[in-house]
Amino acid sequence: MKKFEEKTIHSNEIFKGKIISLKVDDVLLPNGKESKREIVNHPGAVAVIAVTDEGKLILVEQYRKALERSIIEIPAGKLEPGEAPEVTARRELEEETGLGCHTLTYLQTFATSPGFADEIIHLYVAEDLFEIEEKAELDEDEFVEILKVSIDEAEEMVQNKRIYDAKTAFAVLWMRLKRGK
Amino acid sequence: MKKFEEKTIHSNEIFKGKIISLKVDDVLLPNGKESKREIVNHPGAVAVIAVTDEGKLILVEQYRKALERSIIEIPAGKLEPGEAPEVTARRELEEETGLGCHTLTYLQTFATSPGFADEIIHLYVAEDLFEIEEKAELDEDEFVEILKVSIDEAEEMVQNKRIYDAKTAFAVLWMRLKRGK
Repeated sequence: MKKFEEKTIHSNEIFKGKIISLKVDDVLLPNGKESKREIVNHPGAVAVIAVTDEGKLILVEQYRKALERSIIEIPAGKLEPGEAPEVTARRELEEETGLGCHTLTYLQTFATSPGFADEIIHLYVAEDLFEIEEKAELDEDEFVEILKVSIDEAEEMVQNKRIYDAKTAFAVLWMRLKRGK
Repeated sequence: MKKFEEKTIHSNEIFKGKIISLKVDDVLLPNGKESKREIVNHPGAVAVIAVTDEGKLILVEQYRKALERSIIEIPAGKLEPGEAPEVTARRELEEETGLGCHTLTYLQTFATSPGFADEIIHLYVAEDLFEIEEKAELDEDEFVEILKVSIDEAEEMVQNKRIYDAKTAFAVLWMRLKRGK
């Protein structure tokens, strides 16, 4: 896990924001030469493959300023300090979709952009969904629309680029592999 | 594609690096309120699901400074200015693995971290692989080891977190779905 390790000679903090921070590290390469690494730090996130009793996938559409367009994603959100990922998963599912789940299963964890960021996503599968009567509030700068789609419809959304997001593309393949007939 | 659009009131450039840049945009939300968005700009990348004639997947292990560990990924790399993605795909496959391909098929494009970055990855499938005699050079700060694994082995690497990367997790599911028996 430390193969080809790059040791930090000096770390230069550039920016500390509300969500991400940025640093540039001077590193010592395995061949003894030096280089620079531009690194974004992120608190980490969860994403939820929420499957209805009918085998449909729950998706949310939202505007992503970084991409300057709206895209359709599985429910997801940042980890709050000290919050266990499964708590974040239940909270984000509820906030974004108004749904709770009786069954939440950990699937896997992956880095989203290991070339420049430390963001990792913990992926869960939510089943036995139910409507929550007193719905939790979204963050005040968050606007989402909820969709419920079949696997065929999700695959069509990949083709027409309405689904345009790595974790959601993964979820669509996972649905086809584990739930598709 | 513009649903819930967030209009830019002012864009503040924070950092311009060799690979990424960072800005903080003041935005007007759909409800008329204002907020800030921290955004990383990245040139975009390609990744290649390279499959041998025996149905094995080509992977590369490299140190990822952002994660402070080495991980195993499908071959990938940044787009150079003006370079067509399929040219980048062939170049990165050759540089990282010493392999060329007679068949290169575009699969799909996805954003890796739409919450804070505009990085998109164009995904290709490379088949009919062959060894290149005069191997192209890696970037001078790049150190990789090549692996050739079966689908079962790749799935085991996901379980033990040696594969710990969204595009590669996607590739493993894709292999199981399209090439698994």
